[in-house]
Amino acid sequence: MTTRQDCLALDAADRLAPLRELFEIPEGLIYLDGNSLGVLPRATPARVQQVVREEWGRDLIQSWNTAGWIDLPRRVGDKIARLIGADAGEVVAADSTSVNLYKVLTAASHITRQDQPTRRVIVSERSNFPTDLYIAESLARELGWTLRLIEADEVEAALTPDVAVLMLTHVNYRTGRMHEMAAVTRAAHAAGALVVWDLAHSAGAVPVDLRAADADFAVGCGYKYLNGGPGAPAFVWAHPRHADRFWQPLAGWMGHAAPFRFTPDYEPAPGIARYLCGTPAVIAMSALECGVDTVLAAEPLGGMAALREKSIALTSLFAELVEARCAGHGLTVVSPREPRLRGSQVCLTRAEGAYAIVQALIARRVVGDFRAGDVQTPDILRFGFTPLYTRYVDVWDAVEQLVQVMESGQWREARFHQRATVT
Amino acid sequence: MTTRQDCLALDAADRLAPLRELFEIPEGLIYLDGNSLGVLPRATPARVQQVVREEWGRDLIQSWNTAGWIDLPRRVGDKIARLIGADAGEVVAADSTSVNLYKVLTAASHITRQDQPTRRVIVSERSNFPTDLYIAESLARELGWTLRLIEADEVEAALTPDVAVLMLTHVNYRTGRMHEMAAVTRAAHAAGALVVWDLAHSAGAVPVDLRAADADFAVGCGYKYLNGGPGAPAFVWAHPRHADRFWQPLAGWMGHAAPFRFTPDYEPAPGIARYLCGTPAVIAMSALECGVDTVLAAEPLGGMAALREKSIALTSLFAELVEARCAGHGLTVVSPREPRLRGSQVCLTRAEGAYAIVQALIARRVVGDFRAGDVQTPDILRFGFTPLYTRYVDVWDAVEQLVQVMESGQWREARFHQRATVT
Repeated sequence: MTTRQDCLALDAADRLAPLRELFEIPEGLIYLDGNSLGVLPRATPARVQQVVREEWGRDLIQSWNTAGWIDLPRRVGDKIARLIGADAGEVVAADSTSVNLYKVLTAASHITRQDQPTRRVIVSERSNFPTDLYIAESLARELGWTLRLIEADEVEAALTPDVAVLMLTHVNYRTGRMHEMAAVTRAAHAAGALVVWDLAHSAGAVPVDLRAADADFAVGCGYKYLNGGPGAPAFVWAHPRHADRFWQPLAGWMGHAAPFRFTPDYEPAPGIARYLCGTPAVIAMSALECGVDTVLAAEPLGGMAALREKSIALTSLFAELVEARCAGHGLTVVSPREPRLRGSQVCLTRAEGAYAIVQALIARRVVGDFRAGDVQTPDILRFGFTPLYTRYVDVWDAVEQLVQVMESGQWREARFHQRATVT
Repeated sequence: MTTRQDCLALDAADRLAPLRELFEIPEGLIYLDGNSLGVLPRATPARVQQVVREEWGRDLIQSWNTAGWIDLPRRVGDKIARLIGADAGEVVAADSTSVNLYKVLTAASHITRQDQPTRRVIVSERSNFPTDLYIAESLARELGWTLRLIEADEVEAALTPDVAVLMLTHVNYRTGRMHEMAAVTRAAHAAGALVVWDLAHSAGAVPVDLRAADADFAVGCGYKYLNGGPGAPAFVWAHPRHADRFWQPLAGWMGHAAPFRFTPDYEPAPGIARYLCGTPAVIAMSALECGVDTVLAAEPLGGMAALREKSIALTSLFAELVEARCAGHGLTVVSPREPRLRGSQVCLTRAEGAYAIVQALIARRVVGDFRAGDVQTPDILRFGFTPLYTRYVDVWDAVEQLVQVMESGQWREARFHQRATVT
């Protein structure tokens, strides 16, 4: 079995190890929650101060020109494009994932209403991230359409002739299960449906190739594996065959062909720029750019393929060590064991105590998170492994702490059972 | 006539003068563009660094609880509420003005479709800020409604029985003309229409009393007179009689009654919280809070009423000095002369050279901005007077520079005629 010494050796041989230096990781913390909020890149504080003090404080409005504020959504979008198999000019950073999802779902609905008006169903997974379902539910209600929720393994069967849009999150936020993007997209197209991918748990975590998969639309999150900071702007992509077709409903001035002509009539910008809406969040987007740069820093070291290889090694090691060292403690690995079907996280479950175990680990400076189950799904102990800054020895040490929590029964203490507002 | 000495005396006697110390104003700069982008509050850089380094960098996800990230939209909203005549719990800070406008216009359309389904017209001003018109145009198109554009003085006449929603910007971004909110709202209600106010050029600039005016919905901007920084989050208000009625279309998880229960079905939060959508932009919203605090700092000194008094004095002085000292140079004051009808800005026009004059002034460290005209409206030289940090002597010195630009003919130099991307 793998030993701590083996893990240290793996770290010593890891070509990606120097990337950890790009981050400010609190001393002694094993942070396995980069799938919720990525850690602070070392470059971000100074960059944010520069934006605040110099670009805003000193140069004020002239920074729209001199500091390139007006180009930020496209500049950051072009960088994100390199991580998700899109071309330059196809992605913009803007708004939140939820808002962007509304834009692309509405666009997809318009295309369907024009091309195939009998299709009036949006299909998604019941265990999709809730905001995706709420947005789809809201739009379906407006259109008199139906949102049909299915389980992950029912996708192909659900692609009946009434389906307009298949909306999936590539990597499930709870289980880490990953859809095979190309195959699913192919099946949806064969069935006549458009496909919207939410890359919240994919961008920066696993290789994504939207163009190779021939996807239709995608959105994603800036503050998870892209390390953009809490509530960072999100991003949106539309396949070029769709980008010019529809005037998305959040038709704000930044999506206008000539925003500073201040004309009363809307003329959408060509391509993805029409998916912009209001004034870009300059400070937040500058922080996001620093975050995206940390992922791009892996390019000379093999890029997303190399990150993926390490991610699989980390998650496989974690699952292996938990099963070997925590045997008999009632913990079950619920993420897929086959790497091909797993994102960069590993989720465990336990019949009781999941919340308290996560809290006991946090008290020991191992940060994962808890996601409550319901009648259909179990409580989850969720551990994300960001290959940019997670070491093999962190995996070993995290499991060691888990072993101690379980063997000592420490998680049964009352203090670990008090729920905070957000977990 | 007023002299520079008089202006210095006015500043010396100004009870609000100490508020200028709350800002980092570049040495020697006369900044008359706070209606485009407010200046940097002194407190902001340190607060942003704290959020970036400590709340994000050190405390990571626990800051959702320990730093109150989850409450930010409501906490900042409550502060903004004090500036616009709303009660605590009625305002949230979120998204952009454009996105918020889409939410409230959609909500207003739903209410109308339920209560008065024959009304299918949105009325607005042709000279409204373009993004407002684009959003309304987009929604009207979706609904099969009509967007009817009128001139500012045609509002009452336009309130025909087919009007569902009157959507106005309280203070016009070009001319500074201000609508009488209570009277216009009363007229609209008498005619059976709902009223949506855009407070982009009002919040923090002029007293607003949404509850006294009995308005229906309002949105506003965080980066102008609220000094929240470039692209700061915006805000949204719904009268409590409407807030619980409609499930706004951008139904993201932050507007859910229990976002962290992660249920697949959307249950809107009670009241204004349902107007939240995605994850709050924590860094940007923390900067916005510092900006709002600068306006609230005027409360012990008389608050918005005192700021308004100074604003009127500043704008009246500027108009008076321009007319007296620039006579014969072809400049015309286009903002209303009656203070009751004017926001916190003064706009000038000139048959030719408006752009170049603004550029020549910027070269002399007097920053206003230029807004191009069209066949119906003239080119505008726009000057905003933020009473929090603008001194009477700044008004005098700005006019002195304008006199010198005009008398020297300096603005005719070619270098002042080259257009930048954004002006």
